[in-house]
Amino acid sequence: MWGIIATWRMAVEGISEASHILENNGDAGDAIETAIQAVEDFEYYKSVGYGGLPNEEMEVELDAAYMDGDTLDIGAVAAIKDFANPVSIARRLSRERVNCMLVGEGAEKFAHKEGFERKNMLTSRAKIHYKNRLKEVQQQDIKPYSGHDTVGMVCLDTKGKMTSATSTSGLFMKKKGRVGDSPICGSGFYVDSQVGGASATGLGEDLMKGCISYEIVRLMKEGMHPQEACEKAVNELDKKLKARRGKAGDLSLIAMNNKGEWGVATNIEGFSFAVATASQPPIVYLTKVVDGRCIHEVASQEWLDQYMKTRMAPLEEK
Amino acid sequence: MWGIIATWRMAVEGISEASHILENNGDAGDAIETAIQAVEDFEYYKSVGYGGLPNEEMEVELDAAYMDGDTLDIGAVAAIKDFANPVSIARRLSRERVNCMLVGEGAEKFAHKEGFERKNMLTSRAKIHYKNRLKEVQQQDIKPYSGHDTVGMVCLDTKGKMTSATSTSGLFMKKKGRVGDSPICGSGFYVDSQVGGASATGLGEDLMKGCISYEIVRLMKEGMHPQEACEKAVNELDKKLKARRGKAGDLSLIAMNNKGEWGVATNIEGFSFAVATASQPPIVYLTKVVDGRCIHEVASQEWLDQYMKTRMAPLEEK
Repeated sequence: MWGIIATWRMAVEGISEASHILENNGDAGDAIETAIQAVEDFEYYKSVGYGGLPNEEMEVELDAAYMDGDTLDIGAVAAIKDFANPVSIARRLSRERVNCMLVGEGAEKFAHKEGFERKNMLTSRAKIHYKNRLKEVQQQDIKPYSGHDTVGMVCLDTKGKMTSATSTSGLFMKKKGRVGDSPICGSGFYVDSQVGGASATGLGEDLMKGCISYEIVRLMKEGMHPQEACEKAVNELDKKLKARRGKAGDLSLIAMNNKGEWGVATNIEGFSFAVATASQPPIVYLTKVVDGRCIHEVASQEWLDQYMKTRMAPLEEK
Repeated sequence: MWGIIATWRMAVEGISEASHILENNGDAGDAIETAIQAVEDFEYYKSVGYGGLPNEEMEVELDAAYMDGDTLDIGAVAAIKDFANPVSIARRLSRERVNCMLVGEGAEKFAHKEGFERKNMLTSRAKIHYKNRLKEVQQQDIKPYSGHDTVGMVCLDTKGKMTSATSTSGLFMKKKGRVGDSPICGSGFYVDSQVGGASATGLGEDLMKGCISYEIVRLMKEGMHPQEACEKAVNELDKKLKARRGKAGDLSLIAMNNKGEWGVATNIEGFSFAVATASQPPIVYLTKVVDGRCIHEVASQEWLDQYMKTRMAPLEEK
């Protein structure tokens, strides 16, 4: 068996590439890195890598992580600027015994010394989005923050090795130095090859409050199917946040166990995700929440076409 | 009931101050912040705040976090330079709905704008330690890293509110930008006033692999006494790390539940901690591990005297 699952429609090209590696008995580390790189490199996705939207100072600060479910090696970078593939830097860091999570300038120095090439990650489209947002905020007195579509994945290879990885530009208009859940072990990602893995997208500040990726893996270890584990963890955290704080931020989780079974849960409308396994080609699904249960429907061609049209539509400064 | 528990002997003066706040029905947030500040301000402690040992570039980079167990608010800073009390910046951040975890320059900008005063945190003693270490490393071809005595605390006030907080200068000679477990929710700290809280010290890179503070709180929620929960979590993570990686880094955990009962577990020799509750004055204990169980003995006056003598001994450049 092999499999790979990822948050959001934007991951489907990446997991298609990864599925070729996995069906040829490739490594779960190589497959997931390839898949995340594909998302990082595509400039029309506004929340990951190149083309990611900037912070309030118009800097693109990126977070990423990589975890090996065999050794529990973790590597992570946060608030790193001007490197094309943060996930690859995170994977490189996972091979160290200490200094595995680096932030800001320290992360950039490390990446540079390790031979990663610097790249200006601020695209012209991202600049237009930034300028338009600034105007909106000035005119309407609203909070500037929006968008937190992290790409998060879990991968299983034919040797039974599992990995998890994330990559994001974080909240649009975030404060400089802001770190969300994506590079935080247990919140944005967690994987143990003897059980399974999970990864999150949504409001990082709220996802952290439940260590929700760790919790889902733990529930799978207790014997739950990934779908049941995701729903239980998301519903409980959503309920707890509402009880303690009056409201809950967006919480969307994907998970896969070491048999290649998968699950997804969310507390929002319109969450999409992508899966490929030995028994199914890469498919994009949309999730509907009905009475606390999540129902996954294959995305229509119309929806897929519209998705890409919206992403690539011409953009003008307001 | 009220109570406060903290990692290491160095916390005892701080928890003594906090106990006056708590016995007068003060707030668990104020008490824990006061206690951590006391450790941050004392220049002879080499691993927290002022006097903390620098990174490989001779910069003191600090990590800290604060969590409110009623609201689950979290604030954290990492790799922040030249502010006296990172825990207070973390607490300030915990009041935001987003942008609650800030790193590096972004954290410094936020702190400055919020009126926190800059302070050069590199002491003459820390400089001597740095220079001596550099020489040792050059002469002996050893790994430079040592020391990771984070102060971590859990606090309960008479209204039943619980808090947790951490502060550390991290690994001596760490890479610039390195972040350990201390500012990571679920790894370095976790607290829920309906259950209890936990906090960690040791090798951050390994503590993260088990989301161990979250796991201890979860075990207490299942009904375990804090002592049982700490021992189970530490023993299981230690075993798992050895099985998967051949070795386990230092793992030491403290916990308190919402009845003021407490527990401590470690996989090292010579772990000390300090506790004060409504039913006991501030006491320093030393923990011995015997057959996987942890036995806590009150530290002798001789040990306490020796501890401070060592910390404050004259220091010369080699």
